[in-house]
Amino acid sequence: MVKNYKIELKERPRGYHIIDSEVKQSIPNWPNSGLLTLFIQHTSAAICINENADPTVREDFELIFNGLVPEHIPGIKHIEEGPDDMPAHIKAAMIGSSIQIPIVDGALAMGTWQGIYLCEFRNNGGRRRLIANIIS
Amino acid sequence: MVKNYKIELKERPRGYHIIDSEVKQSIPNWPNSGLLTLFIQHTSAAICINENADPTVREDFELIFNGLVPEHIPGIKHIEEGPDDMPAHIKAAMIGSSIQIPIVDGALAMGTWQGIYLCEFRNNGGRRRLIANIIS
Amino acid sequence: MVKNYKIELKERPRGYHIIDSEVKQSIPNWPNSGLLTLFIQHTSAAICINENADPTVREDFELIFNGLVPEHIPGIKHIEEGPDDMPAHIKAAMIGSSIQIPIVDGALAMGTWQGIYLCEFRNNGGRRRLIANIIS
Repeated sequence: MVKNYKIELKERPRGYHIIDSEVKQSIPNWPNSGLLTLFIQHTSAAICINENADPTVREDFELIFNGLVPEHIPGIKHIEEGPDDMPAHIKAAMIGSSIQIPIVDGALAMGTWQGIYLCEFRNNGGRRRLIANIIS
Repeated sequence: MVKNYKIELKERPRGYHIIDSEVKQSIPNWPNSGLLTLFIQHTSAAICINENADPTVREDFELIFNGLVPEHIPGIKHIEEGPDDMPAHIKAAMIGSSIQIPIVDGALAMGTWQGIYLCEFRNNGGRRRLIANIIS
Repeated sequence: MVKNYKIELKERPRGYHIIDSEVKQSIPNWPNSGLLTLFIQHTSAAICINENADPTVREDFELIFNGLVPEHIPGIKHIEEGPDDMPAHIKAAMIGSSIQIPIVDGALAMGTWQGIYLCEFRNNGGRRRLIANIIS
């Protein structure tokens, strides 16, 4: 059985944000055993799983990924939507548009230190739309 | 229900290519609700989702990823298959071997600006084989 | 039908390791047609698919990813768990927490040169826990 749930996240500033509670609240019924795929319908934001406890990890994400994919790279052509746009597309490809989490005993089988990150790469990305796909 | 469809893409030059139409034509029946997993059976090419409108985005992908993972990195050992080979393996690990897209109302639930990219990292990669896995 | 199998990998040193045989031995029954999702319950290690033949590829992975995400990046804040910790989180986000492999004719439908990598980013990561999720 496959079910899809649309999730519209509240707007967040550029950076990395834990969205576990918004995701969990958007799904009315969890199967005992299954698979959650979380898919983001945008190309300048991404979804990943990472450390859920220390907020400085998310600050370091912003610092390190900005260093890897800086704004104003010489020679790039897609610049009309602002200097934060093309780096956002590259980061989205690096981190990815979806995650999968097994559902075991009626709950997401994440490790102790794992949380779900919305990676917002734009300065003003607005509300982001996800689809939660649950297979059971 | 799970169905697998083999897809052999036409050969493409090194770079980033939108393959939505080839993927859609390879699947005879779409379920009303489901999940598509697209898997590439190679380690020097990748699959991702990114911007589908402005071709300069894909040109910038080539420029930026070549800068991140250049050829002729000092100290690398796996060089006998050419200078484009080892960077291709690294880019494939960074971008990934598969994508997932929910199927909603009988169609891929991608956002307005999302397209499916074949990321061809080799100078002469040849025809690439995918498997489209559909769960419904 | 969805089944989950817990896998605890033996401890491995920092680096990139092929784990195909441990994964295959952990699953008692393979369906004829399906999808394997392999999920790692940690945020300082990752799972990907890459070249399975030449061990120097995995050595080059260590060299190149260490160059991309070095230790002691100026300005980072999450340093109390050692200099290998924060780079491990970034690499985990870049490479990813899960892979998917279609199951065709009762076997994983990987290409000839594809193997499953455990990417161990910590100097002493210990035993790593995976969940193998099989949909059929």
